[in-house]
Amino acid sequence: MSSALPLRPPLKIALLGCGVVGTEVVRLLDEQAADLAARVGAPLELVGIAVRRKDKRREGVPPELLTTDATGLVTRPDVDIVIEVIGGIEPARGLLLDAMKSGKSVVTANKALLAEDGATLFGAAREHGVDIYYEASVAGAIPLLRPLRESLVGDHVHRVMGIVNGTTNYILDKMDTSGSGFSEALEQAQALGYAEADPTADVEGFDAAAKAAILAQLAFHTRVTAADVHREGIADVTSADIASARAMGCVVKLLAICQRVPSDDGRNGRGVSVRVHPVMIPRTHPLANVREAYNAVFVEAQSAGSLMFYGAGAGGAPTASAVLGDLVAVARNRVHGTRGPAESTYADLPVLPMADTVTRYHVSLDVADRSGVLARVADVFADHGVSIQAVRQEGHGEEAQLVIVTHRAPDGALSATVETLRDKEIVREVASVMRVEGDE
Amino acid sequence: MSSALPLRPPLKIALLGCGVVGTEVVRLLDEQAADLAARVGAPLELVGIAVRRKDKRREGVPPELLTTDATGLVTRPDVDIVIEVIGGIEPARGLLLDAMKSGKSVVTANKALLAEDGATLFGAAREHGVDIYYEASVAGAIPLLRPLRESLVGDHVHRVMGIVNGTTNYILDKMDTSGSGFSEALEQAQALGYAEADPTADVEGFDAAAKAAILAQLAFHTRVTAADVHREGIADVTSADIASARAMGCVVKLLAICQRVPSDDGRNGRGVSVRVHPVMIPRTHPLANVREAYNAVFVEAQSAGSLMFYGAGAGGAPTASAVLGDLVAVARNRVHGTRGPAESTYADLPVLPMADTVTRYHVSLDVADRSGVLARVADVFADHGVSIQAVRQEGHGEEAQLVIVTHRAPDGALSATVETLRDKEIVREVASVMRVEGDE
Repeated sequence: MSSALPLRPPLKIALLGCGVVGTEVVRLLDEQAADLAARVGAPLELVGIAVRRKDKRREGVPPELLTTDATGLVTRPDVDIVIEVIGGIEPARGLLLDAMKSGKSVVTANKALLAEDGATLFGAAREHGVDIYYEASVAGAIPLLRPLRESLVGDHVHRVMGIVNGTTNYILDKMDTSGSGFSEALEQAQALGYAEADPTADVEGFDAAAKAAILAQLAFHTRVTAADVHREGIADVTSADIASARAMGCVVKLLAICQRVPSDDGRNGRGVSVRVHPVMIPRTHPLANVREAYNAVFVEAQSAGSLMFYGAGAGGAPTASAVLGDLVAVARNRVHGTRGPAESTYADLPVLPMADTVTRYHVSLDVADRSGVLARVADVFADHGVSIQAVRQEGHGEEAQLVIVTHRAPDGALSATVETLRDKEIVREVASVMRVEGDE
Repeated sequence: MSSALPLRPPLKIALLGCGVVGTEVVRLLDEQAADLAARVGAPLELVGIAVRRKDKRREGVPPELLTTDATGLVTRPDVDIVIEVIGGIEPARGLLLDAMKSGKSVVTANKALLAEDGATLFGAAREHGVDIYYEASVAGAIPLLRPLRESLVGDHVHRVMGIVNGTTNYILDKMDTSGSGFSEALEQAQALGYAEADPTADVEGFDAAAKAAILAQLAFHTRVTAADVHREGIADVTSADIASARAMGCVVKLLAICQRVPSDDGRNGRGVSVRVHPVMIPRTHPLANVREAYNAVFVEAQSAGSLMFYGAGAGGAPTASAVLGDLVAVARNRVHGTRGPAESTYADLPVLPMADTVTRYHVSLDVADRSGVLARVADVFADHGVSIQAVRQEGHGEEAQLVIVTHRAPDGALSATVETLRDKEIVREVASVMRVEGDE
C-alpha cells in the first residue's frame, strides 16, 4: 500500500505481557507493518516479549521473541518504547519505572496501576523526559483520554459521566429487557464471557472506580486515586428497582460521574466529586440507549457543550487498537525527538466527600396505610432541608407504598433523611433508595 | 486557580477575523488566560486582530488590537501563532500561506479552504516546519479529527459516516416529527437561526461535502477535494419520501459517507468512495436518534469496531472551544520546539466515481394497475444485475404503487435501472428514489 520508503532506522519495541491484548498487538504490528512505518516515519520492530512462562502456546507469536527476563528487556539499550499489557500493580509498576529511567517511552493499558499510583508514573515520565500514553486504560478503543487531554484542553470541563464497565451494563440491560433478577443476569453474562468467574471487580464497581479516577484526573487536572472514589456496585439492584425506574420513565445504569463543584464565588471550583454508583436516568437520555456491553461517556464542557463518545469498551482487538494509536503517537514523538503533553495536576482541587455531593434521590417506602402518613414522611424530608419533587402513593393495606423523588440536595442530607425514615414507626421498610441523574 | 507561575515569555497570537467565532475566541483567551498559561507552559498573548472594518461594534474586543492590515499582522516577526476564522478561499489562503512562510504555526476553522486546497496548505506546513491544526473545521467542538488523526492511526478505518450539517438535520428532523414539507421546515429553521437567508450551502450539501472531503482525506490518508465528492442535497426530499421511510421503519438523514472500497484481492483498497446524499436508515441505528441540529459521526475501524462521536456541530462557543484546543496543542509544540504529526497522503488511493460505489436503493413507482406489472418491473432490475430484497404493492387503479428495496449493487447499475423504468409504459411515474444504509 505504501510507496514511501522509510528512511529512518527502525524503532525497537518491547512488549510486556502476551495475553489476549498482547497477542493482538503482536498480530497488528506484523499485519500493519507497512502502514505503521509510513505513519510513524520509521519501521516499528518488535524485539522482545516478556512472559511468565515461555512454554504456553500463543498463536502467531514468534517464540524466539519470548523472554522471562522482563527487567532485562525493559532496560535493553536498543529498546525505544515499552508496551505494558500485564495489568495489576506489580511487577507492572516496577517495570514501567525501570523502562522510563532507562529513557524508554511507555504505552500502558493498566487502569488499576494508573488509578492507584498515576502520580508516580507521570512524575517519572517528566523526570526522565519520556512519554507515558494510556488511552487503552479507559473505555477500550473509544478515543476519550486524548480528546480530554488535548482537544478540550482549551475548554472548561464541568462533568464527565458515563458507562465505563461493559459487564455491569450488560447485566443491567438484561435485567431491564428480560425482567430477570441480578443473579440470573450475572450467570448469563458469565456464560457469554462478559463477566468473569469472580465478578467482584466489575460488579462491585472497582473497575469503574479506577476508570473514574483516571478520567477525573485528566478532566480536572487534579490528583485523584481509586481510593478517593465513592463506590457502590450493582449487586443490590433488584428487579423492583428496575421496575420502579421503568414506572418513572427511567432506566438503571452504573455510572462513573466526575464533577467539578463550583465554589460559592463562581467558576473556579471548590473541589471535585468522583463517584461510581447505580443511577436512574430518563430513557430519553442518550446514555439510556447504550445497550449490552457497550460503553459511552458524556462530557459537558463550558464552550463545547455536551459531547458523547460511544463504542466497544473492552475486548482484545479494541484495546489493541487503542494501544497501537498510542504507540504511533509515542513513536512519532521519538522520531521527532520530542514528547507529548505531560500530565498536569496544577489545579490541585480537593476530592469532596460524598456527603457534600449534590444529587437527587428516588426513595420507595413500604408504609402503614393510614391517614397522615404522607404528611409525616414529608416532614422528615423538610427537617433535613430536602425538597420533594414528586410523590406517588401506590397500593393499600399491607401493600401501601410511597415513591418519592427529591430535588437536588447534598448527599449527606439525603442519606440522613433515609436513616431517619428507617427509624419511623409508620415506615415498615425502606424498599429502595437510588440516586437520579439527568435534568430535573 | 493556577499556582504555577509560567516561566516562559508569552507566545504571541494573531487572530484573522472577528465575527461570532472570533469574538468568542477573544473572550476565552482573556477569561481562561491563567488556565491556558498553565496548560501550555507559557502565557498566550493576543497581539492583533485583522478585520475588514475597524468601526464595527464588537463586544469585549479591545479596539486597540484591531487592524485592517492582515498581511502585516501575519508576517509580524514577534507573532508565533495565527488563528484564521475568516472563512472562504481568499484572502484566507494567501494569509495562511504568508503566515507559514514567516514561520508561524496556524489554527484554522476554514472547511471550504481545507476541502478545496488542503494539499497546498499541508505542503506549506511541511516545507516551513510549522503546524496546521483544523479541528474546528468539521463538526464544531466534537473531537473528531484528532481521534482520526492520532488515536485511530494504528488502526484501519473502513468507513466514516455521519451527520455533519446541523441545518439539514434540523429540517429533516422537523419533517419527520411534525409532518411538515421541506419549504415549511426550512422556513422554521430560518426563523430559529439554524438556516441562513440563502440556505444553498447547507441545503444543497456543499457544506457537508467539504467536511466529507476533509474526513476522507484524514481517514484514508489520501487526497480528496470537495470537487471529488458526489453531492446531492435535500431540497427534493418530499413528505412522501419521509412517510415511505417511516413505513419501512426508517428515517431520512443527509449523510456524509466516506468508504474504503476493498480491491478484489483483499484489504488494501481499490479506492475510496466519498459522497453526500439523503439516506434512509433504520430507526434503530444510533444515527437515526440524532435530533435537531446535533451532529454525530460513526467510524468503523478494523480493530476498534464501531465508534460514535456526538455533539453540537456548530455555533460560536463550540467552534471556539475546538479552536482553543488546537491553539493549546500548537502552543505546546512551540514551547517544546517541535510540531504535531503532519498530514500524510501516502496511500494515494483514487476517488471512485459514484457509479462504482456499492449501495442500496429504495424506489417508489406509480404503476399501471394490471396483472404482470410486478414481473415486468422485476425483469428490469434483473436485466441490470440488481437483486431485489423486498417489494410492497400498495393501492389500486390510479393509486397503484410498487415500493422496491434492492440488495447491494453498483450505483451505476441502480441508476440505469431507474432510467429504464422511467421509459417503461407500465410505469406512470418514478415517485421517489433514495439510497438505503444500515444492515441489510
